[in-house]
Amino acid sequence: MEELRIHSVLVTGANRGIGLGFIQHFLGMPTPPKWVFAGCRDPKGQRAQELQNLASKHHNLVIIPLDVSKPASIKAAAATVKKRLGGSGLTLLINNAAIVRNANLDGETLENMTEIYTTNTIGPLLMGQAFLPLLKKAAQGSPGSALSCSKAAIVNISSSGGCVSAPEIFDLMPFISYRCSKAALNMLTKCQSLGYWVHGILCVALHPGWVQTELGSSGGYQPPLTVDTSVRGMLKVLSSLSEKDTGTFLDWEGKVLPW
Amino acid sequence: MEELRIHSVLVTGANRGIGLGFIQHFLGMPTPPKWVFAGCRDPKGQRAQELQNLASKHHNLVIIPLDVSKPASIKAAAATVKKRLGGSGLTLLINNAAIVRNANLDGETLENMTEIYTTNTIGPLLMGQAFLPLLKKAAQGSPGSALSCSKAAIVNISSSGGCVSAPEIFDLMPFISYRCSKAALNMLTKCQSLGYWVHGILCVALHPGWVQTELGSSGGYQPPLTVDTSVRGMLKVLSSLSEKDTGTFLDWEGKVLPW
Repeated sequence: MEELRIHSVLVTGANRGIGLGFIQHFLGMPTPPKWVFAGCRDPKGQRAQELQNLASKHHNLVIIPLDVSKPASIKAAAATVKKRLGGSGLTLLINNAAIVRNANLDGETLENMTEIYTTNTIGPLLMGQAFLPLLKKAAQGSPGSALSCSKAAIVNISSSGGCVSAPEIFDLMPFISYRCSKAALNMLTKCQSLGYWVHGILCVALHPGWVQTELGSSGGYQPPLTVDTSVRGMLKVLSSLSEKDTGTFLDWEGKVLPW
Repeated sequence: MEELRIHSVLVTGANRGIGLGFIQHFLGMPTPPKWVFAGCRDPKGQRAQELQNLASKHHNLVIIPLDVSKPASIKAAAATVKKRLGGSGLTLLINNAAIVRNANLDGETLENMTEIYTTNTIGPLLMGQAFLPLLKKAAQGSPGSALSCSKAAIVNISSSGGCVSAPEIFDLMPFISYRCSKAALNMLTKCQSLGYWVHGILCVALHPGWVQTELGSSGGYQPPLTVDTSVRGMLKVLSSLSEKDTGTFLDWEGKVLPW
């Protein structure tokens, strides 16, 4: 496995679950990024305790207040990250923040649908817009023209729950608001890949597997994958991506998933 | 071509474009439905003039005030339709109402994304919920167990713009909010087909083709298809649907589209 070598990364929803797993893996790399930005809604709160502990030991970790459902919060985060980077670009944006509600066809509401879509789909769109100048800068400063995650990339953490063509998932996960938001996120990823290609930015949607997190356990199940296994797998996948992979939907083992 | 014979139908966004085309075709059938409900936001307004003209000639046409982005409006419409049906069910629900904004990756906003998703995706979900009792009643009152549009059906008017797997559409239609809403609508259609199958309700997503309507012309193009050709084609497709077609995505000529 070739190691992923990146100058800087921002992970949203970084205080727990898969987001925190990404942060831990980036900090523990033989050649860690110069800057690891961890976005979370309440950096000073109890739920960010583990991030705070990590930041006291790793001076390349910067915790950023970030609520991806709020445009003003996204803009403020982009300004903070730009200042820290001091003229260099952002290599990797991992849109990981997501929420779920256990609502089926009968129980879904306008409020649920709107809330989930705002965080899971609109958030990644607005993050891409706000960080585009920094991602472009990273791409421009990287040698060669071929796309890769070491050059500049947007990684949207999606879900097999967003596969329209996988009806068997319905019995396991009939959460309409979540599934619609992830199908739309897959569409967004495709559009970002087509629109940002010219800027040298690779865009991909990843299914992390069914992971032992709060979100993964919603519905009362016991998921099979640890965060560590999932994140290790996804980082391996990211390190292997090239030009031909932009706009695809892959799982944590690198398998191409249907839309 | 076997004619579609239905007891009752409700079309949303029925005052113009494809919605109005459906109403005209239903009223002109050799065996027209007993009830044709035309939902539109402002039944008394200038933009509903053609519907008003039709209603003065066809006593089976009922114009219903309906804004699919407002749960209270949907509930009121369901109560009105139930009263008119007087104990019988609603055979066919055509979720046609949709809006578009010409916004690309750079220009999309939270407000745009939310507004388009509310009408194009959440609306069809809430319509399905509110009219489910009437659709179930239609299915229960119909002989045989096989699904069909003459028994009970939800038809969601989607778009090839919702195909994630068709990248060539991006150049023609880079409207992110619209494309994400239609990808999510396709997911909703799949979930409805799986959830409502047990109630005897067929659910399908249709791409009407690129039609000469206000929506179809957004972007300054001249679409190739007339409303009449598109609606005629879709009605032929609907008349041919059976059990095996529930949960699929078809175009106005009956061709299966990829997700």
